[in-house]
Amino acid sequence: MKTNAEELFKEFREHSVSEFFRKNAAMLGYTGKIRSLTTIIHEGVTNAIDAAEEAGVLPKIFVAIKRVKEESEHFKVVIEDNASGIPEEYIPNVFGKMLAGTKLHRHMQSRGQQGIGVSGSVMFGQITSGRPATVITSTGNGEIIRADVMIDVDRNEGKVMNAEKLEGKWRGTRVEVEVKDVTYMRSRYGPFNYLRMTAIANPHVHITFVEPDGTLTILEHATDEVPERPKPMPLHPWGIMSDDLLVLAKHTKGRTVTSFLSTELSRVSKRKAEEVLKLSEVNANKKPAKLTWEEAEHIVSAFKQVKLMAPPTAGLRPIGAADIENGLRQILRPEFTYAVTRPPKVYRGGLPFIVEAGIAYGGGAGKTVEGKGEGEEIEAEAGMELLRFANRAPLIFDQGGCAITSAARNIEWRRYGVDVSTAPLTLFVNVVSAYVPYTSAGKQSIAEEPEIFDEIRSTIMDVARELKRFLNQKIRIKERHERAGVFEQYLPVIARKAASLAGTKQPDIKPLLKKVTGDKHDEES
Amino acid sequence: MKTNAEELFKEFREHSVSEFFRKNAAMLGYTGKIRSLTTIIHEGVTNAIDAAEEAGVLPKIFVAIKRVKEESEHFKVVIEDNASGIPEEYIPNVFGKMLAGTKLHRHMQSRGQQGIGVSGSVMFGQITSGRPATVITSTGNGEIIRADVMIDVDRNEGKVMNAEKLEGKWRGTRVEVEVKDVTYMRSRYGPFNYLRMTAIANPHVHITFVEPDGTLTILEHATDEVPERPKPMPLHPWGIMSDDLLVLAKHTKGRTVTSFLSTELSRVSKRKAEEVLKLSEVNANKKPAKLTWEEAEHIVSAFKQVKLMAPPTAGLRPIGAADIENGLRQILRPEFTYAVTRPPKVYRGGLPFIVEAGIAYGGGAGKTVEGKGEGEEIEAEAGMELLRFANRAPLIFDQGGCAITSAARNIEWRRYGVDVSTAPLTLFVNVVSAYVPYTSAGKQSIAEEPEIFDEIRSTIMDVARELKRFLNQKIRIKERHERAGVFEQYLPVIARKAASLAGTKQPDIKPLLKKVTGDKHDEES
Repeated sequence: MKTNAEELFKEFREHSVSEFFRKNAAMLGYTGKIRSLTTIIHEGVTNAIDAAEEAGVLPKIFVAIKRVKEESEHFKVVIEDNASGIPEEYIPNVFGKMLAGTKLHRHMQSRGQQGIGVSGSVMFGQITSGRPATVITSTGNGEIIRADVMIDVDRNEGKVMNAEKLEGKWRGTRVEVEVKDVTYMRSRYGPFNYLRMTAIANPHVHITFVEPDGTLTILEHATDEVPERPKPMPLHPWGIMSDDLLVLAKHTKGRTVTSFLSTELSRVSKRKAEEVLKLSEVNANKKPAKLTWEEAEHIVSAFKQVKLMAPPTAGLRPIGAADIENGLRQILRPEFTYAVTRPPKVYRGGLPFIVEAGIAYGGGAGKTVEGKGEGEEIEAEAGMELLRFANRAPLIFDQGGCAITSAARNIEWRRYGVDVSTAPLTLFVNVVSAYVPYTSAGKQSIAEEPEIFDEIRSTIMDVARELKRFLNQKIRIKERHERAGVFEQYLPVIARKAASLAGTKQPDIKPLLKKVTGDKHDEES
Repeated sequence: MKTNAEELFKEFREHSVSEFFRKNAAMLGYTGKIRSLTTIIHEGVTNAIDAAEEAGVLPKIFVAIKRVKEESEHFKVVIEDNASGIPEEYIPNVFGKMLAGTKLHRHMQSRGQQGIGVSGSVMFGQITSGRPATVITSTGNGEIIRADVMIDVDRNEGKVMNAEKLEGKWRGTRVEVEVKDVTYMRSRYGPFNYLRMTAIANPHVHITFVEPDGTLTILEHATDEVPERPKPMPLHPWGIMSDDLLVLAKHTKGRTVTSFLSTELSRVSKRKAEEVLKLSEVNANKKPAKLTWEEAEHIVSAFKQVKLMAPPTAGLRPIGAADIENGLRQILRPEFTYAVTRPPKVYRGGLPFIVEAGIAYGGGAGKTVEGKGEGEEIEAEAGMELLRFANRAPLIFDQGGCAITSAARNIEWRRYGVDVSTAPLTLFVNVVSAYVPYTSAGKQSIAEEPEIFDEIRSTIMDVARELKRFLNQKIRIKERHERAGVFEQYLPVIARKAASLAGTKQPDIKPLLKKVTGDKHDEES
């Protein structure tokens, strides 16, 4: 039976982005009872840290997960920060509208990027428990606002209910979300481990955590230094695409192409812009909005022929090798640890990124047996432990499709003297960028952009080489010990016999022994 | 330096869904040069097959990938179907607006679901090549429309340019997208293998494919049977969530809760609805729109206490065990093949799904060395080959995070006599549902919903048991052969010696030999 087009297209409809993500909650990380709860913690905590850093204060985060009405899979999640607070008029859009926020349009390193995270938590709470989220916030003006927020899914709009104003001198934001169909577990994939990993990668963050059974854990900050505020960064011409250039040209305030290029792009002076326009045969006085695709393509390729300074990294804030080593030492107490933060590179779109990696060997490093939680058992996985981070935020799901995982697997570990299936090894990788190319809105996996993949691989190889040096030394020391053992045993006997044969006095063999075996005591110290 | 809220929130903006996916193209599968090209083929081909099936015709799909201007990474992709065509007024929205389409709001099994796919291809073409897509379509009314389409990213709107009308008797749609920064390869992840997998799972589809070097491949349809048109299916009460019920109640035409439940839900008669409302203590004459969350929760739990018929499966169209076995035999020529299509189950939201699996052993089954493409080399992976499908569409990326992969890994294959790292084994799994819970908009990976994970695991175990039976029989036959060898060698000698000792005539040992060894010739036939 044939059907005609008019009949079929009667069903054509438009949909709101909230409706889309309500039906596709799995894309935001709401899949499975353990992961869904961790996703709420992740969204709340990354937002809280971002907000505190943007406000220029040392982040102090309070997280609590409480059981509601003793029902087993019904929880209330509380996340509180000490950031700037949210002005009243923005509350509906911050918590109830998707694709709205302060970060998406700026090229800035932050944990959140998309203006979906917190609205996603509010929606997941709403569709599982039927309850609105409760927001308590103050900008520090003596007035505290308390309001309930729900999402109107059809319209992608926030609805505020029961708003009230209280008096009080406090600054910050507290969000309470009620959820059902989630499970609390102290496993690798649960909130506890998520917060522990956050603490490793963010030594300046102070986290207080209350578990459903009332256990209080304080993950203290290891430094009092307020991190620099992240800065929006203009795009750098290396690797920029024609389309990016045209989008910028459409919105620029520059009146000529010359002024457009030198104001909107990083490391492009007026003289550099003129040089590029000459090379690309584009009229320097043309209006930017009138640039054609072909001209944009010529400009993009001309940028590859001129000398430019490397992209600025003022806006990028890696953890730093010293702090990574400290973090690994504090948690794992390994025999050996080494970390490296490499210089910035760029990938598609001219966006700079930094990769840093740390390695820990021995002690508590490597995978250990997982804890049990609430009657469920988690099996330990064999092999090297890989800790993945993007802008210091832990990535704990979707490891399969992540560039960090595939780069780590791509290393020939045997060349570094390591059997990854048995070695007590923890590998830490953090990718830092104003714009991390996640594979999905759940932000748990970094796409395999070739430049990023290669850089991760090189960084891991840097730390692996140091590990090899350490392991070789370990082997040499062991061999010296063995050699020393042989000589210590036989040399005195030989010396005695030889002296007796020659009829001379027995010589002092200590200097010889030291020469042959090396001073193992010196080497060990 | 502290910063206050008013200053920070000056940067608060709203964004269009197109802008979001332009910046997050990786979420739609546009990541890497090989994958990006395969994604365009995937989106176009799934849409083409869906459209032909909806139009009630046997799908005939033409796919061509051409090199443009001899530039190495600049291609034109052509996909043509023989479906209903698209009425002129819908062209901008079909190709230029995201989250718009005929499928998202209906509970129906189709390959596409989200109203993003084709607009995503148009956008990817536009941001890499700067060129609009060209659409040629006719509803068969003698008028053929040819138009260029671009996306206005800021507004999430399609812009039609250079539209013209031609005369001609033809029905169907042809889309041409120009793309840069992609690579053509005949590897596992390339378009050729994608189309081959599509053919295995869709014996009714006829595919003609022209590769960039001009090679023409015809994947002929193996059946002339026009598949039944997919039907929208109401939700089934099993496992439905309170929020789903309230969303339905908001949009229903039913005037009372009784009529609402019995018209909007599947397998709910008027009497059944009354029984449920009595149990849940909800007023049967209440207006549906006035239902509270608590009442919805009571109704949901009451549905679990009454007897209901299983969900209807009229709308679900599995491939069927026989066709899966045929497909595997045709492509792999294995020693053994077995497939099973299990009865429908439901998962969250009351949505039915079917899992089917096939297994092939020996012959061409198992992973083989990959072909090379255009100077790049692909390494073969060791171990069992896993072919994943959702609604007959091949899933070839993101295998790591997919419920099919994790269910397959979760099987203790040794119990079935199989070493997955060496066995010549191909496992085929197809998940069929009106609504497949993908983990990302790239639709390459199925979320681990517990009911779906368990069902996939059980289905794989069904086929694995048959494989075990086959392998055991193979071992028994081998053992009998060995045993037969021993007896055939020594029994005549023993018989001769014994007869000579006893002074009797040598007995006929054939019946004895047959009894001891089993008739291996019978068993082999």
